[in-house]
Amino acid sequence: MSAHPPSALLNLPAYPADSYAVTADRLKALLATRCDVLLIQAEALLALEAAAASMARPGLLAVNIVTSPYGAYFGAWLRRGGADVVELVAEAGQPIAIEAVRRALEALPRLDLLSVVHGEAANGALNPLGEIVALARARGALTVVDAVASFGAHPLAVDALGIDIVAIGPQKALGGPAALSALAVSDRGWAHIATVAQSAPSLLSLHDLKQTWIDTGRGVLPGTPSAMEFWALEAALDRVEAEGIEGLVARHQQAARATRAGLRALGIAPWIASDASASALVTAAPVPEGVEAEALIAAASRFGVALGRGFGDIADRLVRLDHTGARAAFTPVLANVVAYGAALTTFGRAADLGRAAEAVTAVYAEGR
Amino acid sequence: MSAHPPSALLNLPAYPADSYAVTADRLKALLATRCDVLLIQAEALLALEAAAASMARPGLLAVNIVTSPYGAYFGAWLRRGGADVVELVAEAGQPIAIEAVRRALEALPRLDLLSVVHGEAANGALNPLGEIVALARARGALTVVDAVASFGAHPLAVDALGIDIVAIGPQKALGGPAALSALAVSDRGWAHIATVAQSAPSLLSLHDLKQTWIDTGRGVLPGTPSAMEFWALEAALDRVEAEGIEGLVARHQQAARATRAGLRALGIAPWIASDASASALVTAAPVPEGVEAEALIAAASRFGVALGRGFGDIADRLVRLDHTGARAAFTPVLANVVAYGAALTTFGRAADLGRAAEAVTAVYAEGR
Amino acid sequence: MSAHPPSALLNLPAYPADSYAVTADRLKALLATRCDVLLIQAEALLALEAAAASMARPGLLAVNIVTSPYGAYFGAWLRRGGADVVELVAEAGQPIAIEAVRRALEALPRLDLLSVVHGEAANGALNPLGEIVALARARGALTVVDAVASFGAHPLAVDALGIDIVAIGPQKALGGPAALSALAVSDRGWAHIATVAQSAPSLLSLHDLKQTWIDTGRGVLPGTPSAMEFWALEAALDRVEAEGIEGLVARHQQAARATRAGLRALGIAPWIASDASASALVTAAPVPEGVEAEALIAAASRFGVALGRGFGDIADRLVRLDHTGARAAFTPVLANVVAYGAALTTFGRAADLGRAAEAVTAVYAEGR
Amino acid sequence: MSAHPPSALLNLPAYPADSYAVTADRLKALLATRCDVLLIQAEALLALEAAAASMARPGLLAVNIVTSPYGAYFGAWLRRGGADVVELVAEAGQPIAIEAVRRALEALPRLDLLSVVHGEAANGALNPLGEIVALARARGALTVVDAVASFGAHPLAVDALGIDIVAIGPQKALGGPAALSALAVSDRGWAHIATVAQSAPSLLSLHDLKQTWIDTGRGVLPGTPSAMEFWALEAALDRVEAEGIEGLVARHQQAARATRAGLRALGIAPWIASDASASALVTAAPVPEGVEAEALIAAASRFGVALGRGFGDIADRLVRLDHTGARAAFTPVLANVVAYGAALTTFGRAADLGRAAEAVTAVYAEGR
Repeated sequence: MSAHPPSALLNLPAYPADSYAVTADRLKALLATRCDVLLIQAEALLALEAAAASMARPGLLAVNIVTSPYGAYFGAWLRRGGADVVELVAEAGQPIAIEAVRRALEALPRLDLLSVVHGEAANGALNPLGEIVALARARGALTVVDAVASFGAHPLAVDALGIDIVAIGPQKALGGPAALSALAVSDRGWAHIATVAQSAPSLLSLHDLKQTWIDTGRGVLPGTPSAMEFWALEAALDRVEAEGIEGLVARHQQAARATRAGLRALGIAPWIASDASASALVTAAPVPEGVEAEALIAAASRFGVALGRGFGDIADRLVRLDHTGARAAFTPVLANVVAYGAALTTFGRAADLGRAAEAVTAVYAEGR
Repeated sequence: MSAHPPSALLNLPAYPADSYAVTADRLKALLATRCDVLLIQAEALLALEAAAASMARPGLLAVNIVTSPYGAYFGAWLRRGGADVVELVAEAGQPIAIEAVRRALEALPRLDLLSVVHGEAANGALNPLGEIVALARARGALTVVDAVASFGAHPLAVDALGIDIVAIGPQKALGGPAALSALAVSDRGWAHIATVAQSAPSLLSLHDLKQTWIDTGRGVLPGTPSAMEFWALEAALDRVEAEGIEGLVARHQQAARATRAGLRALGIAPWIASDASASALVTAAPVPEGVEAEALIAAASRFGVALGRGFGDIADRLVRLDHTGARAAFTPVLANVVAYGAALTTFGRAADLGRAAEAVTAVYAEGR
Repeated sequence: MSAHPPSALLNLPAYPADSYAVTADRLKALLATRCDVLLIQAEALLALEAAAASMARPGLLAVNIVTSPYGAYFGAWLRRGGADVVELVAEAGQPIAIEAVRRALEALPRLDLLSVVHGEAANGALNPLGEIVALARARGALTVVDAVASFGAHPLAVDALGIDIVAIGPQKALGGPAALSALAVSDRGWAHIATVAQSAPSLLSLHDLKQTWIDTGRGVLPGTPSAMEFWALEAALDRVEAEGIEGLVARHQQAARATRAGLRALGIAPWIASDASASALVTAAPVPEGVEAEALIAAASRFGVALGRGFGDIADRLVRLDHTGARAAFTPVLANVVAYGAALTTFGRAADLGRAAEAVTAVYAEGR
Repeated sequence: MSAHPPSALLNLPAYPADSYAVTADRLKALLATRCDVLLIQAEALLALEAAAASMARPGLLAVNIVTSPYGAYFGAWLRRGGADVVELVAEAGQPIAIEAVRRALEALPRLDLLSVVHGEAANGALNPLGEIVALARARGALTVVDAVASFGAHPLAVDALGIDIVAIGPQKALGGPAALSALAVSDRGWAHIATVAQSAPSLLSLHDLKQTWIDTGRGVLPGTPSAMEFWALEAALDRVEAEGIEGLVARHQQAARATRAGLRALGIAPWIASDASASALVTAAPVPEGVEAEALIAAASRFGVALGRGFGDIADRLVRLDHTGARAAFTPVLANVVAYGAALTTFGRAADLGRAAEAVTAVYAEGR
C-alpha cells in the first residue's frame, strides 16, 4: 500500500468567483429556460427540501403526487410549512394515472400548488409530466417538478409547460458530480416565494439565495464552495454540450428501449408495463416469487454486474437495471440484461439469454 | 483550448459503502472523543443549521455567543425552533470576554444550552472555549461548539471539556474537501435531541441521521453521496494522520506566531491584540484610515498574494492573512506579511519590510 | 468549453526519491524473482531496445524468434550491436512451433542468446515460453523475454525458467501507466552485460542504469522522472496487490476462455486455433473474405465497441477483441463478442449472436 | 491508510489519435517556427540522445560546447556515431565565452555541426545562444540546441537564428509533464538526417519518426502512448496559451531579477556574475567555504524551502534557487532568498535578510 497516495483531488486550483454565473448559465442553456437558475451546494435532496420550505405557507392548498419515498418527503415538507396537502399516491412502484390527477383536481375548490416527480430512479416509473402540469396550470396553480432523475434522459420543456420550480442534479444523466444541484425558478415562483414569511436565514431559503446570488449579480454563495465539485460540473457540461442535450436524451431513450426489448426477449415483463411510462435512466425488472432480491443481486454480481436494490415497500419485488449517464450504452445494457437473465436461471427460472442478447443488439443496430 | 479536457474527476470509482463508517471513525479518532460522529453531506454551514434545528425547542433557554455573522445565524436558528435566546455579542471583530459570559450566565435563572464559535475565520478571533464551556457545564447546560475554523489548528478536548455537539469541516486546517462536514454528538446531546418534536423528516434533522446512520450500523446516508468528496476526505485524512493531529496544530500555531511577529515588526498591531485570543488559521490585520480595503488587497495582489476580505460591519477595517492547511508554512506566511507591508507602503504608510521578514524568519528558526 | 479546465494532473506532489526503490521492489515481488528490477522511464519499447543494445556484441550467436514486428525489431537491434542473429520466423500471426525451435537450435554449433516474445498483443499468439527457454538453457544460452503483453495475464516463473532478462510494462494486464516500464536482470545477465563494450553513456545502456541505480542503492534515475507516472504505477500496484497476481492471471484466463467460446458459438474459429497458444490479453478473430477490416471495425463501433486493428502483413485478415486489464471482465467480453458477431451480419455473414452470448455467459457462470 | 486510494490517474479517457497533431501544432506555435515538430514519448534526455544519434555520421566535424554533464553526453553520442568532435569546455559551472567559440571555429578548417545547451538548470548559466549560432551559421554548419531548460523562460527565435534542431520539454517553464518532450527539425536538418546511414530501426532515430509521424500525416507514434502525459501536456498548453509565451518569459525574467537582487542584498554574489549570462529558471548561489552543501540545504529545509543540489565537480560549491514554472512568482522567490540567507546565518555567515526581502519586493513592486 502506498505510504502517500496521490492527492490529485486536493490540489485543484480555486474555482474562479466569476465562473459560478457562467456555469449557472450553461445549466440554464441546457434547460432552455428563461427561469433563474440557482446553484445549490449540496445534493439535490437539499434543493428539494429548500423548494418545499420556500413555497409552503399556512393555508396553501397543494396536491402532492407520490410515486416514491422522495415524493412523500415533499408532502411532509409542505405540511411542515403549514400547507394543506392532498396527497395522490400511485399504486406501489407505478406512475400516477392521469385520470386520478384529473379527478383529484376536480374535487378541490381551488389549487395553489402541485408537486410531482418526473422520473423515479427507485422504480423506473415516469409520470405523465406534460399532462399533469397542464391540469395544474389550468387551475392557476404553481408547479414544482423534481426532474433530478429525468433531466437529460427525457425531454423537459420547462417554459413551454409552465413549470415554476424544477430541481435537477448533475449526477444522473449528465454523468457529473453529486454534491451540487440546481433549481430553476420562474418569475411566478419568485413572486410566491416573496410572500412566504421567513423566521430565520436558512440554507433551505430560496429567498436568501435569491438575495445573495441573483439580486447581487450572482457573486456570493453561502459557506465555502467546493472547487472540486464545480470543476467536475464544468467537465460534465463540456461532455454534455459536445454531445448535445438532444443526443444525450436520445442515447438514454435507446438504452431504455434496448433494455426493455431485452427483458421481453428473456420472457420477462418489465416492472413498468407501458413503454410510455418508463424511465430512460433505469429499468426495473421483477424479482420472481420465491426468490430473494438480495440473492438475485448476488447471482448477477458474479458476472460483475451490479443490479440495483429497490426501495420502500416494493424493495423485495424488483431490481433495477441502470443505464444512467455513461451506462446508457450498448455494452452495459447488454451485460445488465444477460446477467439478470443468467441470475434468474440460477434459481431455476427460464430465461432465454440468447434471444435477449439478440433483442438488445437489434435495438442498437437500428440506431437512434 | 483543448477540445476534450481531462475529466479525471468524473471517472472516480464509487466510494465503497462500507468505507463511510471507517472514514467516520478516522474523524472520531482525530477528535479523540467517545461521541458519535455523523458525516454530513454538505458544507459545514448545513451541519450547523442542522445542529440548531435539532436542539431548539420551545422554552429552551439558550445563550448564544456572537462573534461573527455565523454566530448570529445560530441564534436565529435556535429562535426559529422556539428557543428563548440570550445573545451575547462581542465587540465587533473581537472574541467574547469571559467576564461578559460569566455575568450573563449569573443573570439567568437557569441555562439549557450554550452555543459558541471556537475560532472565527472572518476576523481571526479565538474565543476562550475552555472557560466558556466550563461555565455552561457548571450550570448543567448543553454545549454546542462550531469548531469548523479551529479544528486542527487549536487543541480541542471534546470529552474533557464536556462538549455535547461539535461541528467540524475538512476544508480548513485539514486541507480537505469543502462539500462534506461532520458533527460529533454526545449521549447527553442525543438524549436532548430525542425530546425535540419533529414535524417532518429533514436534512436538518440529526434525529433522522441518527436513525439511518448510527442506529443501523452506519450504512445509509440520505441522497446520493459524492464519491469524489469522500475520496478527497480520505486523502486529507491520510496526510493529517501521517503528520499527526498534534503536529498539525503545532504547525498552525507556529504560522500564527510568525505572522503576528511579522506584523508587529512591520510596525502594525494585529487586529486581535492578545496572542491568546488569536486564531491560528488566519490573522486579521488592520486597514489603515484613509485606505480602501479593496485597494489594499489589490496592491498585495500585484505580488501574487491574496489577502482576504473581511465580513460584515468590520469588512472595511481589516484584511485577513491566511495560514490555513498547507498555507501554515514559512513560504506563504512570509509572503503574506511582506506583501501586506508592501501594500501599505503603496499608500504612503510606513512598514519595515526588512524587520518583518526577519521576525517571521526568527520564529521559524526557533522551530515549533 | 471551460476557460480553465481542471489541471489536477499538473498539481501532483513530487514523487519521493526514496519511493523508487520501494516501487521497484513491489514489481519484483509481483515477478517473484531474485533478479534485479530496473525501472525504465519510458514505454516498454525503450526497455526492449535497451536490452538488445546492452546484450549484443560482435560475435554473439543469437536466435531471435519472430512472431510480430516487435520481435523483428529485436533482431535488428542485436545485429546493430554486432551479433550474428539466426531469425526464426513463425507463420504470419501464429506462435512459433516448438519443433522449429528445437531444429534450429540443433543446427547451431553453439548458442549464446535466445530472445522471444511471450505473448503477442498484435495477433493474440502465445509462444510456448517454458519449452523454448528450456531448450535455450540446455545449450547454456542467455535468454531475453519480452513479457510486456503477457505479464499479469499468464503465469511467468522468471527464476524457475531461468530467464536472464524479462521486460514488462504496467499498461497491459496491470492496468497502469504507459510511459514507464521495467526490466528484470539476472546475475548471469549482468555478468554478460559487463562484457559488452560501451562507446558512450546512453539511455539504452543497462550497464549505466546498473551503476546509477543498483550499485548506488537505487537513488538516481536519468533525466527528470515523471511524478505522475510513478504515482499512477503505485495506484495500479495497489489494485494488483489487492487482487493478487494469481487472481489477475485467472481473471485474464477466464476472459480469454469466454471470448474464444463466444467466437466458436458464433460459428467462427478464433485466429489462433489452439487454446494453449492463445494470449489472455487479446483474442484475434478473422476478417472474412470480401470484407474490409476497417469496415468491420466501423460496423462494431456503431455498438460503441472498439475492435482493434491488426498490424503488419496480416493487418487486413484479423481484428482484435481486447480483454486487457479492467476489460478482463464479463461486461466487455460479452459486448466484444456480440458486437463482432453483429458486425459480421452487417456484411451478410451468418453469426449466431444468441448462442455466442450464452457461451460467454456459461464460462462466467462456471467461475474461474 | 485508505484501503483503496483514489485512482483518478488510472481512469483517464484514451487520448484521441487525431489530437497528437493538434498538440504538436500548439507546441509549434509556441516555438513560432516553420520547423517540423516531433513529439517524443520520453523525457527530453531521450530527445537529445536521438538528435545526436540521428545527426552523427563518420567524418562529421562537430563543435560541441560543454557547460554541464548533459553537454558532455551530447559529445559522446556524436562520437559514438563516428563524428569528429571538438569539445569546447567552459569554466566549471560558467557559460561559454563567446570569444572561445570564435577562436575555436576559426581554428577549424570547416564546421559541419555545432551543438550547445541554451540554459543550464545545473548551474544557472545561460550561453550566448544568438552569437554562438550566428558564428556557426556563418560557417555553414548545422546547429543543434538543447533548449529544455530555457524554453519559456528566455526568448528563442528558432527560425530567425537558423537553428536546425531544438529540443524542448514541457516540465520546466511550461509547468507540464516530464515523460514527454519534443524536437523541432528544420528542412536542412532533415536533409542531413537523410544522409545518415541507419543499421536498424530505433527509438533514437528521427528518420524513423519522420517516416511514421510526419510523412504519414502524423498519425502513428511508436509504442503505446501515455494518455496521461498527453492530457497533462494539453492542460499545460492551455495555461501557457492563456498567459502568452511572452508573459511566461517575462514572469521568469522577473523571478531571476528578483532572486539576483535578493542575493546581492544579502551580501552574496550570485554564482553567475553577469545578469546577461544568467538563467531565468534557476539561480545558483555559492556555498561558503567551510560549509557543506548538504548541511546548507538541510538548514534551509527547516524553513520548508528546498534548495537544489549542484551536479558534477561543482556540486559542493553551489546550491540552486528554483524559480521554474509556477515557482516564477514573488512568494517562492522571496522564500528561497530569505531561507538561503537564514541558512547561511546558521553557519555564522553574515546575511542581511531584511535588505534581501526588501530587494526582492522592490523588483516585484516595479512590475515586469
